[in-house]
Amino acid sequence: MKMTPKTFHNQIILTGDRATGPLHLGHFIGSLQQRVTLQRTNDQTILVADMQGLTDNANTPANVSSNILNIVADYLAVGIDPTLTTICLQSQLPALAEITMYYSNLVTIARLERNPTVKAEILSKQFKRSIPAGFLTYPISQAADITAFNASIVPVGDDQLPMIEQTNEIVRKVNSLAGSCVLNECQPLLSKASRLPSTDGKTKMSKTMGNTINLGSSPKHITTAVRSMYTDPNHLKIEDPGKVEGNVVFTYLEAFHPDTIYINELKQRYQCGGLGDGTTKKILEECLQEMLSPIRHEREKLLSEPNYLLQVLEKGSEVAKIKTEKTLYKIKSVFGLNIF
Amino acid sequence: MKMTPKTFHNQIILTGDRATGPLHLGHFIGSLQQRVTLQRTNDQTILVADMQGLTDNANTPANVSSNILNIVADYLAVGIDPTLTTICLQSQLPALAEITMYYSNLVTIARLERNPTVKAEILSKQFKRSIPAGFLTYPISQAADITAFNASIVPVGDDQLPMIEQTNEIVRKVNSLAGSCVLNECQPLLSKASRLPSTDGKTKMSKTMGNTINLGSSPKHITTAVRSMYTDPNHLKIEDPGKVEGNVVFTYLEAFHPDTIYINELKQRYQCGGLGDGTTKKILEECLQEMLSPIRHEREKLLSEPNYLLQVLEKGSEVAKIKTEKTLYKIKSVFGLNIF
Repeated sequence: MKMTPKTFHNQIILTGDRATGPLHLGHFIGSLQQRVTLQRTNDQTILVADMQGLTDNANTPANVSSNILNIVADYLAVGIDPTLTTICLQSQLPALAEITMYYSNLVTIARLERNPTVKAEILSKQFKRSIPAGFLTYPISQAADITAFNASIVPVGDDQLPMIEQTNEIVRKVNSLAGSCVLNECQPLLSKASRLPSTDGKTKMSKTMGNTINLGSSPKHITTAVRSMYTDPNHLKIEDPGKVEGNVVFTYLEAFHPDTIYINELKQRYQCGGLGDGTTKKILEECLQEMLSPIRHEREKLLSEPNYLLQVLEKGSEVAKIKTEKTLYKIKSVFGLNIF
Repeated sequence: MKMTPKTFHNQIILTGDRATGPLHLGHFIGSLQQRVTLQRTNDQTILVADMQGLTDNANTPANVSSNILNIVADYLAVGIDPTLTTICLQSQLPALAEITMYYSNLVTIARLERNPTVKAEILSKQFKRSIPAGFLTYPISQAADITAFNASIVPVGDDQLPMIEQTNEIVRKVNSLAGSCVLNECQPLLSKASRLPSTDGKTKMSKTMGNTINLGSSPKHITTAVRSMYTDPNHLKIEDPGKVEGNVVFTYLEAFHPDTIYINELKQRYQCGGLGDGTTKKILEECLQEMLSPIRHEREKLLSEPNYLLQVLEKGSEVAKIKTEKTLYKIKSVFGLNIF
């Protein structure tokens, strides 16, 4: 059976985001929509990962702290319901730090250095030898997050699969030390469209590169972003045949336009020649403006009530605290350290 | 002014031991006696470092858990007074793990790998590439311990000086991020005799090597240990002149015998020839038996009342929890994460 969000029931799901910037269309299509579906039939927790955000923002901590409430507003604006999903803040859960410390003794530096996700990130961030210890070891912290909630399903992009592998290795190690099944292994849930290209078509989406459309982007920004989108550089005149592969406008149309048949027609016309980028961009712009307008308004309304957002996060964190401390207790038992 | 324990007043002192084995004569002369003095005029905390003990004992956690109460008994038996010294358990202080996580983002892997103490320990433990992450990063955890208590003075052996340096580097980094003096740098207090040789004269003392005399050693073990002590291998006949340098019996006599003049006379006689190892060992044995007998009895009495020991540790941990959480709050403020 093919696993889709709708086939999941009664699973414990942990997902989350580093609190390093507002969420964008890549998050929307890659994970947020999935979460809205998953919350209906599962026990879902979303972790706002502020501490993980600091692993490469320690010198600019405001990048993290200033984004916490933005992210909570993003969640609620797209339909994540705090009565169905536990939304919590990583730094409010001391058990996660404690579990990380215990797991750190079970994972070697060599193993961390072999992690393909971390390897790629070290390269892209140009850390070289000056990689912060917290960054190299963040897969351990992620394993602590996942297991602390006893998650059975972890939605991830394919680039994050090594994290699941690392987590399950730790689970097996703890269980072997305990001589019993103290922790459960988790399964990844691969998102179908986690790799939406940036608007320039060149790189991963990154808010510092200014190549994203955020959930809260202004109508003007959406217009500018769509108009400057990468298309087919060889499609010089309207009558020329154009390429849709690698054409960001078409990728976005496929991802976001509700009328698949219409988009397929457009693709054919574009490939034959006779359809200009101005027209396709106009169609995409209208589609995104329509889709994002209610989200933006809801987001603005929510951000005008920060106390409500704080309350959501605080309540969720209280629920999460109890869950994570239960797991910490089990892990401390494995090491014989529940002595009082 | 030369700094000795007696010249310290009103300082905040943090010291402690890894809970990986009972304390021995090296600890007694190197740190325990000093702590008994320091507690009278300072605010002293002793941390039983069970989590640090796990950094190289994760696969044999009973090595740690089974030694926690032994160590508390050792402390009380030598005169550490829980009404003067806060005795607390590392794993009971979540703030220490949390602070470690924050500091991990401020220290690079390259910096940790340059730490001479860690380098030497990696070599001696033959970790090579399979060093656990928790072991390589334990200087960060030590910095968390020291700063969490806002310690001004940290008693250490000279081999631990790089730990103080690492701690003060982190302090400066945090203060620079904060733009104010959030944390205080600490000073080392070098112990005068931290390097008591093992009974075989060859290696560092290590309980797994069986080359120590513990505070709780039986009279029989003391006898056996002293009789097998390393002396001068060229001192074959009583009338031969003997060497006192590197002669463990004399090192111990100098360290523990109350009558310095008498020991100096013995040394001269030994160097001239005419004094046998049997005699010097007998003198040392009597001295150690007399010194350790009341400590052993007190220790046994204490260990027969584990609830009392637990109570001492629990009370101390409660006091320590308040202190360490105060510091955690300050550090979280630097990163903008006290949001509720």
